[in-house]
Amino acid sequence: MNYREFFQDQLEQLKEEGNYRVFAELERQCGTFPAAQSYSSQGPEDVTVWCSNDYLGMGQHPKVLAAMHKAIDHCGAGAGGTRNISGTTHQHVLLEQELADLHGKDAALLFTSGYVSNWAALGTLAARIPGITVLSDELNHASMIEGIRHSRCQKRIWKHNDLENLERQLASLPSNAPKLIAFESVYSMDGDIAPIAEICDLADRYGAMTYLDEVHAVGLYGPRGGGIAEREGLMDRLTVIEGTLGKAYGVVGGYIAASTDLVDFVRSFASGFIFTTALPPAIAAGAAASVRHLKQSAEERKLHQSRVLEVRNRLDELGIPHTPNPSHIIPVMVGDPIKCRFISDMLMRDYGIYIQPINYPTVPKGTERLRITPSPVHSPEDVKRLVFALGELWTQCQLARKPMAAQ
Amino acid sequence: MNYREFFQDQLEQLKEEGNYRVFAELERQCGTFPAAQSYSSQGPEDVTVWCSNDYLGMGQHPKVLAAMHKAIDHCGAGAGGTRNISGTTHQHVLLEQELADLHGKDAALLFTSGYVSNWAALGTLAARIPGITVLSDELNHASMIEGIRHSRCQKRIWKHNDLENLERQLASLPSNAPKLIAFESVYSMDGDIAPIAEICDLADRYGAMTYLDEVHAVGLYGPRGGGIAEREGLMDRLTVIEGTLGKAYGVVGGYIAASTDLVDFVRSFASGFIFTTALPPAIAAGAAASVRHLKQSAEERKLHQSRVLEVRNRLDELGIPHTPNPSHIIPVMVGDPIKCRFISDMLMRDYGIYIQPINYPTVPKGTERLRITPSPVHSPEDVKRLVFALGELWTQCQLARKPMAAQ
Repeated sequence: MNYREFFQDQLEQLKEEGNYRVFAELERQCGTFPAAQSYSSQGPEDVTVWCSNDYLGMGQHPKVLAAMHKAIDHCGAGAGGTRNISGTTHQHVLLEQELADLHGKDAALLFTSGYVSNWAALGTLAARIPGITVLSDELNHASMIEGIRHSRCQKRIWKHNDLENLERQLASLPSNAPKLIAFESVYSMDGDIAPIAEICDLADRYGAMTYLDEVHAVGLYGPRGGGIAEREGLMDRLTVIEGTLGKAYGVVGGYIAASTDLVDFVRSFASGFIFTTALPPAIAAGAAASVRHLKQSAEERKLHQSRVLEVRNRLDELGIPHTPNPSHIIPVMVGDPIKCRFISDMLMRDYGIYIQPINYPTVPKGTERLRITPSPVHSPEDVKRLVFALGELWTQCQLARKPMAAQ
Repeated sequence: MNYREFFQDQLEQLKEEGNYRVFAELERQCGTFPAAQSYSSQGPEDVTVWCSNDYLGMGQHPKVLAAMHKAIDHCGAGAGGTRNISGTTHQHVLLEQELADLHGKDAALLFTSGYVSNWAALGTLAARIPGITVLSDELNHASMIEGIRHSRCQKRIWKHNDLENLERQLASLPSNAPKLIAFESVYSMDGDIAPIAEICDLADRYGAMTYLDEVHAVGLYGPRGGGIAEREGLMDRLTVIEGTLGKAYGVVGGYIAASTDLVDFVRSFASGFIFTTALPPAIAAGAAASVRHLKQSAEERKLHQSRVLEVRNRLDELGIPHTPNPSHIIPVMVGDPIKCRFISDMLMRDYGIYIQPINYPTVPKGTERLRITPSPVHSPEDVKRLVFALGELWTQCQLARKPMAAQ
């Protein structure tokens, strides 16, 4: 077996398919987000980032940075151990209390990332509850899919956000068998939102637990940033709410919030929680400061939504097609992998604008897109420059425009 | 199905078995490691930590802290995205170069944790190489086991550090079939070290790749901290070296170092690498500073080893049994779960010394132990206090002593 040849062949194939990923090397400029330096062979260049998941720019918020600096001065760099062996710090405990409170739950549990929280929590619940069936939305995130897969439980994939399909599958299972419905609130690539209340109704009717991934919603929706479930007054109806500290909260890490027993169960049995070094206290402290701030301040959320509206309106003025949805994610549809990458490259080269192209397999073929994430730190001037550049490239690539109904 | 009852029953069972974990809530005091505050219902109390995996105290090293502060001021809190979508920062790229250089490899790849690096790298290699068999040492870490399990590849478990058993299993496989031998250098709970050269010989003879987990060795062994493989001049013979930034380097995160093609292959296909927010730039910068420092300075390693020797010698003076091994980990054997927890509790309550008891299932029943990790930041006075306290508790618990041969 020639291993080297095998790896090279696989990479070659990826390149031929146009699916080989090249990373943009950046350095964001704290205090002037969305400005960043982009490193290339020609040295660093100024760019404006339009595809960050630091949705509110909290990654440069003075309270977050101060909390991190203070924790580093106080307790040093890392946690120094797993949660069980010397790695549980005061900062972790405070953050978990903050998160439980955020979601109106009795307890919360911190993981090293949102990916790990989904993988470990779903994996543990599904593996350890005998005879359980997990009903998983077909567009669930990779971390949820891998967790369910890892558990080797029975699973049913239901059609995306399709209540009828979900109900049919629930009804086909024995009424007394354990069940878990796993889904997201805001789906990252299309920005659509699940019918949470109706899914909870079905869960009640068929005796299922619910597991809601709110990673693209926490901090952004609800009076205290508790997510879509908070906005719609549904938090108490969900068995588990999972969230991240790496997107709207601007730091890193993931968590679940649920009943004391369920959280203690996952804490006690999840390999991916137990056998890993805890997050640094400075990360926990920064995240807690961010969560606390966004509980009290709705200003960032308001400004966020108004920037989203502004970008959508300006795109409409030029007839540039973007998928309507009720969230903050603006998918600008290109529908061609080559043109999608070309536009991204030209935006970077000629306009100093960075938007990563989203191609297959992240999205279905034919739906290649630029996924734009406006934030409160984008100025109206930034918005104008973005839409102007897209307009020029739309012409250059001979891409279709929507009828400009408003004009 | 009554889910609540199920969780409660499972937790009750854990408690009855004596396997329920209670976390110690700490706050290390930067600048005066191993001193920490321990939070209990009575408020914070001073303790000395003797079970941290921040083996060299790098978590309080001025260079590490300065690099973190600087990166926070410069680029903010989080990375703001996955590595592919706006989350690759200049700091990640520099750290990966530092790590590739550390192990004499062409490339390195950073993961959010050591757990994720093992799970994702082994999982991807084992799932994506058709017909591969992974030969896994029976005492491999949970993260390796879960990665191999997740891949659903063929696997063979070989007896711990047993070359004969490994060879027998290699010989039984088709000679042209792909194979990967997965093992660790320093095993965490017993502190024993694998015969790396001989395993590489077998790998060569039977056409296998090698995957070496050096998480308890990087920073600690070898002239530049490259681990046991560096110390023994074997780095070029290993296909993959995996390490952590969360133990001797004092921060958090994991990585693999290997050939450019292999690293690019894992980068391109590993779900746990692709679909997760990148580590904050400050974490990458702090870790790089730590790696850089320990490449140039052997002082910490020397002091580390002399502290380990000092603790062992003093334990010998009192006849307190500790398993001999060639590493820095001192397992003090209690051999009884109740007494092990009792000694740990008394150390904390009466002596201000924190050592987490290690019970089943982390170690086999009958081998319950206190796992002591001396470090350069422990003073000779700390060592005296530790051994004095253990001596008193040994008497109180009527535990056997070794013959005091030296006296």
